Amino acid sequence: MTLKEVVLGIDIGGTSTVAGYVDRNGACIIEDLIPTLAHQPADQFFQRLHTFAKQLLEKLGGGYSLRGIGIGAPNANYYKGTIESPPNLSWDYVDVKKSMAKYYTVPVALTNDANAAALGEMMFGAAKGMKDFIVITLGTGVGSGVVANGKLIYGADGFAGELGHTIYDSNGRICGCGRKGCLEAYASASGIKRTVFELMAKSNETSELRDVSFHQMTAKMIFEAALRGDVIAKNAFEVTGKILGMKLADSVAHTSPEAIILFGGLAQAGDLIIEPTKRSMEEALLNIFQNKVKIIPSAMPEGNSAVLGAAALIWNELK
Amino acid sequence: MTLKEVVLGIDIGGTSTVAGYVDRNGACIIEDLIPTLAHQPADQFFQRLHTFAKQLLEKLGGGYSLRGIGIGAPNANYYKGTIESPPNLSWDYVDVKKSMAKYYTVPVALTNDANAAALGEMMFGAAKGMKDFIVITLGTGVGSGVVANGKLIYGADGFAGELGHTIYDSNGRICGCGRKGCLEAYASASGIKRTVFELMAKSNETSELRDVSFHQMTAKMIFEAALRGDVIAKNAFEVTGKILGMKLADSVAHTSPEAIILFGGLAQAGDLIIEPTKRSMEEALLNIFQNKVKIIPSAMPEGNSAVLGAAALIWNELK
Repeated sequence: MTLKEVVLGIDIGGTSTVAGYVDRNGACIIEDLIPTLAHQPADQFFQRLHTFAKQLLEKLGGGYSLRGIGIGAPNANYYKGTIESPPNLSWDYVDVKKSMAKYYTVPVALTNDANAAALGEMMFGAAKGMKDFIVITLGTGVGSGVVANGKLIYGADGFAGELGHTIYDSNGRICGCGRKGCLEAYASASGIKRTVFELMAKSNETSELRDVSFHQMTAKMIFEAALRGDVIAKNAFEVTGKILGMKLADSVAHTSPEAIILFGGLAQAGDLIIEPTKRSMEEALLNIFQNKVKIIPSAMPEGNSAVLGAAALIWNELK
Repeated sequence: MTLKEVVLGIDIGGTSTVAGYVDRNGACIIEDLIPTLAHQPADQFFQRLHTFAKQLLEKLGGGYSLRGIGIGAPNANYYKGTIESPPNLSWDYVDVKKSMAKYYTVPVALTNDANAAALGEMMFGAAKGMKDFIVITLGTGVGSGVVANGKLIYGADGFAGELGHTIYDSNGRICGCGRKGCLEAYASASGIKRTVFELMAKSNETSELRDVSFHQMTAKMIFEAALRGDVIAKNAFEVTGKILGMKLADSVAHTSPEAIILFGGLAQAGDLIIEPTKRSMEEALLNIFQNKVKIIPSAMPEGNSAVLGAAALIWNELK
C-alpha cells in the first residue's frame, strides 16, 4: 500500500494553537486545537503539541507519511527557525526548530502567520499561478506577506513584510508597537473601532453603535451595523478603506503586484471594505499602475486557512 | 586566439545617449556618447546608435565577441522590451527589442535606469554578494531598484520600483507626475532646491543662496554652499534626509533589505545627505528593523555607472 503524503500545519496563537494534516492538494484531512497556555514555559508547550499532533494522526488510522511540519507563529523567523519576543506569548526567545527536533526528524519550517497566509494563497487559494502579489491580513493587527518573482520575500533578516507598520500619519494614533500612525492603528479590527469612536465624537449622526462601550464593541458589530445601514458604521468602513488604499498605492510602487489579497476578520466584510480600498488606491496610484492591480478576498477555506498556510510552507519547498 | 566576451551597455537619456563595452568583470573597455535628438523619430535614433556602437567596437581593433546588449532607458519595460510614454523623449511607444533586432542577433534586454543601477551595484558595486537591497537614485527625479531573494523585482507589469512616487504628504508639493506630495518632489535635485526656497521664505537666516534665482540654482550650488557652512543649505540637506529617511523606513517594512544604496547626483553629497537620512530612518523604523539596515553610497565608477548598470542586465542573465 502506498502511503499518502501529508504535512503537519500548525498555527500558534496567543490563546489557542491549531494543528492539522494537509495533503499536497491543500485538503485539510483533520484539524483540531489545543490551548496555547502561553504563560507556561515553551518546552512544555512543544511537548503537549507533539502528543496532540501524534494523537491527531492516530485518529486517521494509518496510511499517511509525514513529509514535514510548517508553523505559523507571531514574530517567527524563517531563517533562524525561532520565535523572538512574540506579542501575547510569554516566551522571550524560542528555538522552535530545535524544540521540534526532539520529537521529529522531518523538515520543520516556520514564519509569521501573514507570510504563511501568502504561501497558502499561492499554493491553494486566490493567488494560484501568480508570481507577484501581496496578502494583507486584517485581523487583530495588520500583517502582510509579499511575493515577488514567485518567491516570498523574507528579507535580509527574515522579518520582511510588515506593511501594518508603515506610517500613515506620523502625528496619528498610537500603535500597539509604541510608535505613531502605523497603518495597523487604522486598518485592523481595533483600528476600525477607533475610527467609529472618532466618527461618533465628530458627528451627531444617530447610530446603534452609540449604545456600545469601547471594550464591548467588535469589528463584527460594526460590520453588522453597516449592513443594517448604520451611517457611522458605513463611514467607518469608508475611512478604513480610504487609508488602506492610500498605503497600498505605496506598496504597489514597490513591487507592482498583480493582485492584493485581503485576508482575515475585517476582510470578511467583503465589498464594504474592498470597494473603498480599491477606489482610494486607484486615486493614489501613479498613472502607469492604474487599473491593473486587483483587490480580491482570500480564497482559502475559512476554517482551515491558518493550518493550510502553515502547511504551504513545506509543500512550497517540496514543489 | 580566444575572443574576449563583452556586453554593449547603453543608457538612453533625454539629451544624450551613452554606450560602452563592458567585460564580465565590470571593466568598461571603451565608452562614448551621442546626442539622443529625442525630437527625431525613434527609427533614426536606433540607426545612428547602431553605427555609433559599431564604430566604437572597431576602435578596439578586434578580439572581442559581443554577448548581448543591455539598455537603460526611461519608462523601459523589461518584459515587453519597450519604452512607453517616456518623459523627455518624443517617442510615444517604441519596441526597442524589435528595433535592435534589425541590426543585432545577440540578446537585448532593457529596463529603466534605476533598475539597471541596482543590477550594476549587485554585480560590480556596493551590493556585491547581497541578496536583499534597494538602490535609490537621487537625480533629476527619484528612481529605485528593489532586489529581493537575489533577483530584481520587475513586478507583474515590469514597472516595479517607483519609490520616488510613494506619497510623503498627500497635501504636499505638486510632483512632475501630476500628483501631490511624492517623495520625488522632495528628495530629487529639484526637490532640494524647492526646500531651499521654502526655507528662505520661512526664516531670516542669511544665505548666499538668496542671490541665486530659482532657474539658476542647482543641487551642486546647494551642496557647495553647505560645505561652506551656509545654514539654509545645510538645513535643506537635513530636511531632505528627514523626509527620505521616513519613506525609506516604509520601504524597509516591505522588503527588509540588508542595505539601501544611494546613487546619482544628490547622493554625491555623501554624509551631508546620508547622515540625516540614516538618523530619520532609524527613528521611523519598527523596533525589529532598527540598527540593521546600512545606508551606503554607490560603489560604481562614477563616469561609467550608467553603462555598467545597463551591461549588468545581460551579464546577470549569463551568470
